[in-house]
Amino acid sequence: MPSIFTRIVKGEIPCHKVAETVDYLAFLDINPLVKGHTLVIPKLEVDYIFDIEDDLLGGLMIFSKRVAKAIKKAYPCERIGMAVIGLEVPHAHIHLIPMQTMADVNFANPKLTLSHDTLAEIAQNISTEFV
Amino acid sequence: MPSIFTRIVKGEIPCHKVAETVDYLAFLDINPLVKGHTLVIPKLEVDYIFDIEDDLLGGLMIFSKRVAKAIKKAYPCERIGMAVIGLEVPHAHIHLIPMQTMADVNFANPKLTLSHDTLAEIAQNISTEFV
Repeated sequence: MPSIFTRIVKGEIPCHKVAETVDYLAFLDINPLVKGHTLVIPKLEVDYIFDIEDDLLGGLMIFSKRVAKAIKKAYPCERIGMAVIGLEVPHAHIHLIPMQTMADVNFANPKLTLSHDTLAEIAQNISTEFV
Repeated sequence: MPSIFTRIVKGEIPCHKVAETVDYLAFLDINPLVKGHTLVIPKLEVDYIFDIEDDLLGGLMIFSKRVAKAIKKAYPCERIGMAVIGLEVPHAHIHLIPMQTMADVNFANPKLTLSHDTLAEIAQNISTEFV
């Protein structure tokens, strides 16, 4: 069965898209730790990030950099933190998280509950800054 | 003033080295969350990871994959988690953390206190698996 992220890639499940290339997709985490919390995935479904072949893996990081720069412009912060935990969804994904302090990247923190309209606005704000 | 990691690269400060290439270095975090917790850095001193130029950044990820595979062989676990927080030392570094559960990648967890000899043994065990 395809992962929920593959279904997002195929357009079978909606997402708040931030950026896209031929190989990669970035969209908002719908249970964000902070505003602007974004997921970056390879469109190819690979469960474990370190099973991704080298070129695609290197490119994933370079795409993440472009997305991180857009997030930081839209939501000014100290820096964008990055985390790959990967036991939730069996499709490799990088969390990009705007940080003011180290404590902002803690998955034990309570998640924000944001409306569909708010998420759509955040995605639009980041997308506008993506180059 | 050079970062503490640049001083490690230069050999001015010792580390428990796990792996090294011309451009990158991996060594144990001396305040590990779990056994095998490793830091991966570019030798070039860049504070913020997303300021690293594309080729070096992509290569950092590919080197991290090699290190992660070695850690997982030496210390069997569900997978290797990855985090970049980066507000502690002004020299970009990726945390590679052997995970049994998501809760293992939580920087609010208490750190392990390991002796110099134990750290040396862990570094050796991982280094042996590095290819």
